[in-house]
Amino acid sequence: MYRLICQRGHARRGEFDTPHGKVQTPVFMNVGTQGAIKGALSARDLKEIGCQIELSNTYHLHVRPGDRLIRDMGGLHKFMTWNGPILTDSGGFQVFSLAELRRIREEGVSFHSHIDGAKIFMGPEESMRIQSNLGSDIAMAFDECVKIPSPYDYVRRSCERTTRWLIRCRDALEEFNSEPDAVNPGQMLWGINQGAVFHDLRIAHMQEIAALDLPGYAIGGLAVGESHQEMYDTIEAVEAYMPKDKPRYLMGVGTPGNILESVARGVDFFDCVMPARNGRHGHLFTWGGIINIKNEKYARDEQPIDPACNCPVCRRYSRAYLRHLFKAEEMLAMRLAVGHNLYFYNSLMQKIRDALDDGRFDSFRRDYTEILDKRV
Amino acid sequence: MYRLICQRGHARRGEFDTPHGKVQTPVFMNVGTQGAIKGALSARDLKEIGCQIELSNTYHLHVRPGDRLIRDMGGLHKFMTWNGPILTDSGGFQVFSLAELRRIREEGVSFHSHIDGAKIFMGPEESMRIQSNLGSDIAMAFDECVKIPSPYDYVRRSCERTTRWLIRCRDALEEFNSEPDAVNPGQMLWGINQGAVFHDLRIAHMQEIAALDLPGYAIGGLAVGESHQEMYDTIEAVEAYMPKDKPRYLMGVGTPGNILESVARGVDFFDCVMPARNGRHGHLFTWGGIINIKNEKYARDEQPIDPACNCPVCRRYSRAYLRHLFKAEEMLAMRLAVGHNLYFYNSLMQKIRDALDDGRFDSFRRDYTEILDKRV
Repeated sequence: MYRLICQRGHARRGEFDTPHGKVQTPVFMNVGTQGAIKGALSARDLKEIGCQIELSNTYHLHVRPGDRLIRDMGGLHKFMTWNGPILTDSGGFQVFSLAELRRIREEGVSFHSHIDGAKIFMGPEESMRIQSNLGSDIAMAFDECVKIPSPYDYVRRSCERTTRWLIRCRDALEEFNSEPDAVNPGQMLWGINQGAVFHDLRIAHMQEIAALDLPGYAIGGLAVGESHQEMYDTIEAVEAYMPKDKPRYLMGVGTPGNILESVARGVDFFDCVMPARNGRHGHLFTWGGIINIKNEKYARDEQPIDPACNCPVCRRYSRAYLRHLFKAEEMLAMRLAVGHNLYFYNSLMQKIRDALDDGRFDSFRRDYTEILDKRV
Repeated sequence: MYRLICQRGHARRGEFDTPHGKVQTPVFMNVGTQGAIKGALSARDLKEIGCQIELSNTYHLHVRPGDRLIRDMGGLHKFMTWNGPILTDSGGFQVFSLAELRRIREEGVSFHSHIDGAKIFMGPEESMRIQSNLGSDIAMAFDECVKIPSPYDYVRRSCERTTRWLIRCRDALEEFNSEPDAVNPGQMLWGINQGAVFHDLRIAHMQEIAALDLPGYAIGGLAVGESHQEMYDTIEAVEAYMPKDKPRYLMGVGTPGNILESVARGVDFFDCVMPARNGRHGHLFTWGGIINIKNEKYARDEQPIDPACNCPVCRRYSRAYLRHLFKAEEMLAMRLAVGHNLYFYNSLMQKIRDALDDGRFDSFRRDYTEILDKRV
């Protein structure tokens, strides 16, 4: 499924097959939490901004509108009219970050919905059932995302349970995929590595889950409060133990600089709410750093957001107009800003792939890692 | 400038020239108050939903971002990237409905901005200066929009002042158009008929302003609280005194039924915030009546909003998905709903024009006037 096209240091240029088409890696997954991109972007816009693969959230869609409903509507691809690859997370992260009155047992987690307080139970089988109903191409394992810092012993026991849960996920999805009315019988399961910033736990857990020979592996539980350096060190520690012939996904990361540094450490897949969230606040990524379009200095600026950008927004609108839309609180402001930022992220990944193909990734990384994260 | 193609009873099928292209009438003007359509629609979307002419608001754009700024950016067409015809209202309606601490004198009106409380003076010359800076194709006269009911004597004196203001508008715009750096030297002025629901005042005022031989005339001050029947009666009373060779614009009207009934009474131009506003609340126009997409019964409905509609939203999305977007409070909900509703309005006007062309307007009106306004 994963084909390594070339490797530069630890950085990898590859290609990955899904039931809804190939993905060129390294890749950024555009986040459509509830089956829609925040900021009023449509599935058609996703094509225009160069999105290869979309990510939706199991927990959110389970709570609303319900995964059974989406299954009855033909699955998430049809429901949201996106015919490219979709990855769904397992709900684990939301259960541990959003839900209230959580109680963890071996079977799974009991919690209350953040929408209406309704009591929900989710374990490996429930998460797989939901993801099977959604019919995504890549289902993520149900895991415990421990907070950082957490005591060593707690993290160790949690990793052991996450491994036991992974085996149950695998067995459950195998069963659901074999059902005659499976929405997407080619749906695959990726495992998630945990272990906080304890390198020995990360490595031991990675070795255990790698032995299951799943089609992909994620590094989870990072970007939750530790320093960037701790995150990079953890990736470096665990990367050597990740299968070379499987894609690696760093969950929830990150800034353009984070992505460049993580690609350099062997990561292939990324996702992050940052480009959409920052866009909604008028913080726009450019090849010269991050600008705040609400700044007075753009009031009469006839240039596009980024003269070096070829996105549909930069091809058409001025900074002055975009600033006006933000000041006037027009919804169009957010749509244009999010569209630009996501195009920027997808285009960053394209440039990373080109640099890897052409053997100039090191200089590309050197030129851009710092500047892209800088507020100017 | 206005060419009457055919007339059926009082209903007129025509064509009107502007510096940014021809408009086929009867026509609905899509409202972009602050230089953007509410609901995150872009100028490109306007083309897709069949918009012939866009309407923006002098008062709002004067307050923010400022008409001087828009002039410096090349005018409103360039600023918002819409190259079709634009009509700007005069600010009069907003001054009399939104602004605080208003004081009317012969020179004009002093008031406080609804944004920051700043003191503003606007008279005929100021309104024309602003509209000249915006560079719209059609500038509306600065008038007093009297509330209904108002005492007869007040309305009479107000109409007389509105006539005096109209003459000052005409002289001012003539001067501004002759400036070498005029944004849109072909900008034209339309007069506005007032008189509340007093037919004799309406007629006398219409006769006075018709004598000025302006390129178009509006009926203002209706749809402000009087009954539909009073509105229709007033149109009927004044219509006979409106020049046959000029377009007639009924300001701020209305429902699909209102539009059909007003076309039947000789009106050519319409504008209304209703399709965009209702859309943002999930009230969607269809050829079978108005539906509330948030209704539970649409939760699993795979049909488009209106199976008889050919808009980009109906061609792609299900009611179930749209309902989900509304329940999940996704911004995309509003964009799709507003896009559909505006397409519906533009398409209603197209069908009205076709019916006039084909000599079957009476039956079209009979079939649709009631049903289109009905909640189903």
